[in-house]
Formats: sequence, C-alpha cells, structure tokens
Amino acid sequence: MKNFCLFLYLISFMAACDSKTTSENQAKQQSGDVTLVIHGGAGTIRKENMSPEKEAAYHAAMKQALNVGYAILDEGGTSVDAVIAAIKVMEDSPLFNAGRGAVFTNEGKNELDASIMDGRTLMAGAVAGVTNVKNPITAAHAVMTKSQHVMLTGRGAEQFAEEQGLEIVDPSYFFDSTRYKHLLRLQEKEKNSGGLSVVQLSEDPFVKGSKFGTVGAVALDKSGNIAAGTSTGGMTNKRYGRVGDAPIIGAGTYANNATCGISATGWGEYFIRLSVAHDIAAMMEYAHLSIDEAADSVIMKKLTTLGGDGGVVGLDQQGNITMKFNSDGMYRGYIKERGAAKTFIYKDDP
Amino acid sequence: MKNFCLFLYLISFMAACDSKTTSENQAKQQSGDVTLVIHGGAGTIRKENMSPEKEAAYHAAMKQALNVGYAILDEGGTSVDAVIAAIKVMEDSPLFNAGRGAVFTNEGKNELDASIMDGRTLMAGAVAGVTNVKNPITAAHAVMTKSQHVMLTGRGAEQFAEEQGLEIVDPSYFFDSTRYKHLLRLQEKEKNSGGLSVVQLSEDPFVKGSKFGTVGAVALDKSGNIAAGTSTGGMTNKRYGRVGDAPIIGAGTYANNATCGISATGWGEYFIRLSVAHDIAAMMEYAHLSIDEAADSVIMKKLTTLGGDGGVVGLDQQGNITMKFNSDGMYRGYIKERGAAKTFIYKDDP
Repeated sequence: MKNFCLFLYLISFMAACDSKTTSENQAKQQSGDVTLVIHGGAGTIRKENMSPEKEAAYHAAMKQALNVGYAILDEGGTSVDAVIAAIKVMEDSPLFNAGRGAVFTNEGKNELDASIMDGRTLMAGAVAGVTNVKNPITAAHAVMTKSQHVMLTGRGAEQFAEEQGLEIVDPSYFFDSTRYKHLLRLQEKEKNSGGLSVVQLSEDPFVKGSKFGTVGAVALDKSGNIAAGTSTGGMTNKRYGRVGDAPIIGAGTYANNATCGISATGWGEYFIRLSVAHDIAAMMEYAHLSIDEAADSVIMKKLTTLGGDGGVVGLDQQGNITMKFNSDGMYRGYIKERGAAKTFIYKDDP
Repeated sequence: MKNFCLFLYLISFMAACDSKTTSENQAKQQSGDVTLVIHGGAGTIRKENMSPEKEAAYHAAMKQALNVGYAILDEGGTSVDAVIAAIKVMEDSPLFNAGRGAVFTNEGKNELDASIMDGRTLMAGAVAGVTNVKNPITAAHAVMTKSQHVMLTGRGAEQFAEEQGLEIVDPSYFFDSTRYKHLLRLQEKEKNSGGLSVVQLSEDPFVKGSKFGTVGAVALDKSGNIAAGTSTGGMTNKRYGRVGDAPIIGAGTYANNATCGISATGWGEYFIRLSVAHDIAAMMEYAHLSIDEAADSVIMKKLTTLGGDGGVVGLDQQGNITMKFNSDGMYRGYIKERGAAKTFIYKDDP
C-alpha cells in the first residue's frame, strides 16, 4: 500500500516537473481528448421560478464560455489559457455572480475574488477583495506567473494588477441596480433581526427567489495538462473583508495532473472547512476513487453531513468529468470530443 | 477499500458532529493522554550562529508556552483554549515572528495573519493582514466562534476584532528596530537587484544569518478533541497584501478528530500549493499512514521535491506527535503524560 502511494507521488512529481522530457510524453500518452467543463454557480435554482427566456439566456452564456474556451484547446492552446478565456466570458456577463455581475458587500461595494492553478507545475495564483480589476481571473493568473506569491489581497492586489497592465475599471462598472436592491432588502431584514447578521448567496437579478454564486472552469489540453480556475463576487451583504473559498487554493480551486482539476461553488465557509477541492484530489490519489466517486463522496456525503450547499465541476487526465452538487441546481456544462457544448441548469436535467 | 473509506467518513462525521452522545464517548475511549506540541518557526537556524544565551532564551520561551498550554489541558480545559494560550505566549514574545515580534512589509508596516481549527466540529477561523490586534490568534478564534465566516481580511477583520472587544494596540506596539533594519537592508538589496523583488523569511533580530517564521500549536484534550492554530508576521518586505499559508485552512492549519491536527511553518507559497496540512490528514484518512509517516511523506518528499522549505508539528487522537521539517532547524517542543516540557532547535537535536 505504502509503496503504491510512493509510486503515485513519483508519477505526480514527474508530471508536475518543468522538464520537457519523459513527463510530457507520458502526459500525452495518458491524456484523453481535450475537454472543458464549467459552472456558473450552484444554489437555489428552480424551474418554477424561471422563464423560458431566462433559461435560454443562461444556456447561451454558458455555451459561449464553453465554445470560446474549447476553441483554444482545439487549436493546441494550454488548459490555463482555456480556463481564463471561459471564465472571462462569464465574468463579463451580468448573469453570473463574478466580475460584471458581482453582488454587493454590506458597505455597498463589489469585492471580487478569483484563483487559478496549473496542474502541470502546481503553480497557483489568487486575489481577494479587489474592487477595480475588470477580470479578476486575469489578476489571479498574473499572481501565478508574475509574482513570487500565491495570494494577494485588497489594495495591494489592485496595485499589483495595475502594475501588470491589467484592465482597470471604475468600481461603478460593477454596479447593478437589481443586485443593489437585493442588498437593501437584506439590510432591511437585518434591521428587524435583532442584531443578527444576514448574508446570502447572490440572488439572481432576473429570476425571483434564485440564489447562487461563483463561476469556474476546468480544462484538459492536448499536452495532457489540467488547469482549474474560479471567480466570484462573494455573498450579498458580506462584511469585515470576508473571503470565501473561491480564492483559497485547496478549497475552491485545485489542479494536479496526477489526479484532477476542481472548481467549486456554494456556501464557501463549508468548502474551506472541508478543503473540498483538495479532498477530492486526495481521495483519488490515496483511496484510488474515480473523479466522480470522489466528488460524490465529498459533496453528497461530507458536505451534506456538515450542512453545506453547493457543488463542483472537475476532470481528470483521461477527460472524465464530474459535475456534482447537492443544491436545487447548478449552471453547468461541458464540451468534449469536438462535440457540441452541453449545458444544464436543474438537478433533473439529463 | 471503498467500503473501508466510507467507514472512515462515518467515523469522521460522528466525531465532527455537534451531538454530545456516542461521538464524545467514543472520542474519550480512543484518546491518549492530553498532549501539546508547538513550533516557533522553521528555517535557517544554525548552532554556529547562536550564543548559549540566545539558545537558552528560545528554550525558555517555548517551555513557557508549553507549560501555560498544558496546564489548561491538565485541568480539563479544551484543546482550543490550550492552543490559544500557548500561541499567545509566543505572540507576546519578541523572539518569534508573530504578534509582538512580527516582521515588516515593504511599506514598513506589520501585517499579521492567524488561524485556528477545532477538530471536533471542523469549525475554523482566520484573519489576514491585521495591523492593530495584539493577539491575532484571539481574532481568529473570534471569527470561528462569533461569526458566520471562516476568513476575514484587512480593515474589515480589524473592525470585527474591535467589535468583539479584543485587545487593540497602536501599530507601533509591533515596531522592533532590529527587524526594521532587516527590512531596510532587504530594500537596499532590492535596489541593486535590477528590479527583482526580494522577500525573505523573518530574520532573527538576535541571531545573525538566522531566518524563520510563524508560530503554532496543536493540542489534544481530556475529551479526545484536537485543535490546531498558527500565527505569523509573514515575510520581511512582503508587498501587495501578500498572504501566506498561516491563515489558510488546509495549508497552514488543519484539525479533524478523525485524523490529526497540524500547524505548519516555512515558505508559505509552497505550503498553499500542496495543501500541506490537509494533505497530511488526507494521507492518514485514505492511505492509512501514521501521522509521522504522513508528515514525512509531505514534508520530506512532496515539499522537498517542489523546492519548498519548512516543517509542521502535529498530533493524532492517541497523542502520537510529529515534528517534521526539511530546514536547518525548527523551534519546537512538546509535553505529554505530565512530563517536563521538551524543547528542541536544530536538526540533530535528540
């Protein structure tokens, strides 16, 4: 058993190694077709609250993210670039709680978090609490590739993004009146709660009663390299510089060629307490579960037992995907084998 | 194999559960004697640079932290309270890079990070980038017990600590002229580096050439409950709101009665990329390694292969401890079975 574990570590580090010899060839031999899987948030997403037009808008936005990312993979681009491209589409859409569609903090600001990880090198980058970076996922990528650090926060992270020449916007770029009204409603509720703090998952600005948060993508490229990324606007009415799981490597995002790439969405505190993304990878590495079995164990058993809501998407080096959640719905989809983009919303979607 | 894993999950959740029935009795039956293990940072710590007086000062400070924490355990107090008490002693000492002895950021500030986790409930709390909380570990504890969140950052975390009535100090409380001179030396070096950013582990203000960082403690109490905590001043000359592994649950700190408690110290970025603390727990849970075997695999193989420096201390529910590091030294020690506090500094210490 232990010897087998040691063998797995060796494989892991050969794959993670920078040298372009055995490890890359081996990766190519082992890898499946290029594959991309995304999510646009898990939560209270119910068919009875959704109009056909809104459903269509969500499917269209997800298909666009998938097609843009998959084109990069199909042309021989890297999994890291595909993840960034897919997430940027969702950050630029007002439909999702990330980038443009971010929810409001207690102070009426939009504070954005994002992270990315490269499964080949185990390099990672994350930003938390940025208010003026148009695409937080690009800031996370710059941290990974242009700094000695993994995680930068607040004004410091913004300054770094500015120095790296990333697109900076006025914070009003993130203002959305429907999401702002949601904040005001929550604060009214809080006033009547006898001092209890009320935070909530993002409420869909277009769909009554719908709550969800966070976008993410996981990709497998032609070289057999896996990457994963996650981006979020956090929770409505969050305060005190609260950070959820999205920028936490091991909780909201993890990638290792030897096991899998994972991006999570849901009530972030539970995902941090369980190290959800890393736990799925560890279950594959040490208990030899498949990615879908591992995701099922962590989301449907551990997370559910602890009382947490949400889900993950992920894939392994053979292109096997997982899209597992314990909430009513999760915006999600994938492309593989040059097929059409397949997208889903509710629990019972085929 | 899979059935055995499911069995382990069940045990895990029974232990993590809030109910005071089977799980707590089981914990008591399974648990060893109360035990406390601490570290005061790992890094370049060499005997040839150390005077007998300085050695004695470090041993004395660690023994004080151990004795204060162990007294709580011996009197039937909780592992959480013992961890806080031991860490507060080290935060209050100028010898360690945490609290009072924190190093300086590029802007000449002291930005402190800390985290704590309760292995019985899997509750956790963390603060990052606080500048005026005397004992950051108490702020992490308040986040765990008094908020809905796990991680608070920057000014928001300070505001929360103030509202919770924690001891607030003027930032000048953390000023230490020797550590400040280290910052100025690094910045001089940076000027001559052609634009390369130079960050370093904390340099010992009293011992030439000595570099290390972070303090931590892991405890097992009479009820068989494990807790772990970590506190740091980060790296000298850090900028951009950089956050290391100390406040990251799963990287610098993890605790679960079903496996172990871990507190890490070293070059934080590597510890985040490997989810070090959670990986040790996962290796125990899924590959059935002992705590010492698991810590050895992660620190001496994975971390070393990736090029990272540092170490961990930890213990399991039977009171087995680990103190594993791949650097020249690690300030470390433990008490168990009502014995005297045992403390160590160098690699070759018995």
